[in-house]
Amino acid sequence: MSNIAVLAGDGIGPEVMIEAKKVLNTIAKKFKIDINTQDYDVGGAAIDLHGNALPEETMKGCQQADAILFGSVGGPKWANLPPTQQPERCALLGLRGHFDLFCNMRPATLQPALSSLSTLRNDISEKGFDVLVIRELTGDIYFGEPKGRKGEGDEETGFDSMFYSRREVKRIAHLAFQAAQKRNNKVTSVDKANVLATSQLWRQVVEEVAVEYPEVSFEHLYVDNAAMQLVRDPNQFDVMLCPNLFGDILSDICAMITGSMGLLPSASLNSDGFGMYEPAGGSAPDIAGKGIANPIAQILSAALMLRYSLNQDEAAQSIEDAVTSALDNGVLTADLLPSNQRQNAKTTSEVGDYICQII
Amino acid sequence: MSNIAVLAGDGIGPEVMIEAKKVLNTIAKKFKIDINTQDYDVGGAAIDLHGNALPEETMKGCQQADAILFGSVGGPKWANLPPTQQPERCALLGLRGHFDLFCNMRPATLQPALSSLSTLRNDISEKGFDVLVIRELTGDIYFGEPKGRKGEGDEETGFDSMFYSRREVKRIAHLAFQAAQKRNNKVTSVDKANVLATSQLWRQVVEEVAVEYPEVSFEHLYVDNAAMQLVRDPNQFDVMLCPNLFGDILSDICAMITGSMGLLPSASLNSDGFGMYEPAGGSAPDIAGKGIANPIAQILSAALMLRYSLNQDEAAQSIEDAVTSALDNGVLTADLLPSNQRQNAKTTSEVGDYICQII
Ligand SMILES: CC(C)[C@H](C(=O)O)[C@@H](O)C(=O)O
Ligand SMILES: CC(C)[C@H](C(=O)O)[C@@H](O)C(=O)O
Repeated sequence: MSNIAVLAGDGIGPEVMIEAKKVLNTIAKKFKIDINTQDYDVGGAAIDLHGNALPEETMKGCQQADAILFGSVGGPKWANLPPTQQPERCALLGLRGHFDLFCNMRPATLQPALSSLSTLRNDISEKGFDVLVIRELTGDIYFGEPKGRKGEGDEETGFDSMFYSRREVKRIAHLAFQAAQKRNNKVTSVDKANVLATSQLWRQVVEEVAVEYPEVSFEHLYVDNAAMQLVRDPNQFDVMLCPNLFGDILSDICAMITGSMGLLPSASLNSDGFGMYEPAGGSAPDIAGKGIANPIAQILSAALMLRYSLNQDEAAQSIEDAVTSALDNGVLTADLLPSNQRQNAKTTSEVGDYICQII
Repeated sequence: MSNIAVLAGDGIGPEVMIEAKKVLNTIAKKFKIDINTQDYDVGGAAIDLHGNALPEETMKGCQQADAILFGSVGGPKWANLPPTQQPERCALLGLRGHFDLFCNMRPATLQPALSSLSTLRNDISEKGFDVLVIRELTGDIYFGEPKGRKGEGDEETGFDSMFYSRREVKRIAHLAFQAAQKRNNKVTSVDKANVLATSQLWRQVVEEVAVEYPEVSFEHLYVDNAAMQLVRDPNQFDVMLCPNLFGDILSDICAMITGSMGLLPSASLNSDGFGMYEPAGGSAPDIAGKGIANPIAQILSAALMLRYSLNQDEAAQSIEDAVTSALDNGVLTADLLPSNQRQNAKTTSEVGDYICQII
């Protein structure tokens, strides 16, 4: 029996989560997997009900589960709370920190058939691309201490600390090289070693790890150059290995240049295979409640969960194949259609139903 | 008499600098300005001659000058030196730090006529854009102490410190709002206030400064979102106000999406009007010495120098008009031409000569 903590959250979270649960039910029957899902409050919804974006009951539920399926959190209603109480930061950093989810995987694929959605020039996007950003998620300037404010008047200072230990860099680097072995055998490590001491350690450790994977080709790029190369020729990349802060920026660029953020899942794992799975996009409050949100990123997040935390490779593949078939057969929500074809758009639940039917 | 320290540097630096000096001579005659230029070694060239990318004589020359006209530094020959000795870091950070060049201005303009060069999708690029990145250049994690390495074995740690004081944020924020007043009256301030205490101070101070400019519209964006928006719709931006590290990344994205980095100058100023002026692109060792590099970014850097450090607005405008006329009349180096029209490309010196002639 696998226990899944379902944290749907805010905005479009609940409505796309319904579809992901439908798909999980269908898959469970087909592959005879015993999956038990339990819902918990998170984000703005949890602030409204419990005064806290990550209530204790939710934490307990996650601790008892084998994986977390996460929707999305945040919205204008909670945007003016102090930073530490805001849904995004409180829920995401809280869960990442507590469960030591140090390995964030954000695949960004541009299928040639959807290349017209990309925001890049046609001759660049028509080649398609398939980038996997592997972002370290529990270190760097996110969690480094000291962090705060001191002094007064004009000399008042805000400060943060960036840190990486050799151990932290090693464990994420190994995962990046292992991922590359299953893909296109190339790792691009991103840093700012011409300025940061943290990056100099990062670069040195990644080089040492690279020696253990002689068949994987390997390069370093400064983060400013990496950002430029992504908008010039993303097709040159396979796995991009990034420290937390640079990974935040670069993975969002990758998502945007696919032009189809509604298709992108992500996984955040710890070293026991426990993980949290969530769509790359946000809570999209502007389209919430209309039944038009794209459920595919949430459904593919469930597939990643089956693969990485539940060890159900075949079931994961079956979901991914069904999604491909929905895309190939034009079963698309509005976000995937050019504006003059939106009258053919399917609703959130139509897409979910179609995928279940194919499975 | 205005004294200019000319630091041509490496790669294409020397050859594009020849054209900028030609233009300065022509302008000096036309506007009867007394300009005295003096060359100094910098970068890899200086390492080869003096063992140091920023020799004392060069520093002294800059101290005696009214402005620095900088080419570009770096190349494969010096890429394997320890980070602190590398030409880019040593020369650029050395000069920025010594002269307190806290205000970096990087304009990125996509002229509709050159929109096909942009790496963005046609319907995005054809609107053109005109973004001015104002990047704080002497604070943040670049210069913050402590910075280094400690510990041993797997617990060895690399660390850096991010800092901003209220005073530092205030002075750069005022310059951003003043720049916006002369442009399109919009400032977008970039930070990561959902994670960084430094950014929370940044955000608060920028808001206080914004109150003094009620006619300038104003927004905050998280850096990850700002990067996405730049590759989705750069036309929405006017002035982007950035801390040092985020500005490094975003200004390079802006440059790349113009598709014509060879046209982009930059200025780095201190509070006395002293400044360093340099092209946005790098030393491009692959095309150096062939006489095909685009001299326009260097020439426009000289124009910015006339405007900001020498108070010669009319002379600056005259150079800028001559450049526009070169572009309008198709007097273009190869980088500005589609690959099937490169046989019509002009050489570096032909472009420089044309601009002098128009002036
Ligand atoms: C909400 C924020 C703290 C978070 C981050 O910066 O990691 C988000 O941008 C993300 O990428 O998941
Ligand atoms: C060379 C490097 C130190 C520098 C920086 O990061 O500021 C460069 O990338 C720049 O943007 O001028």
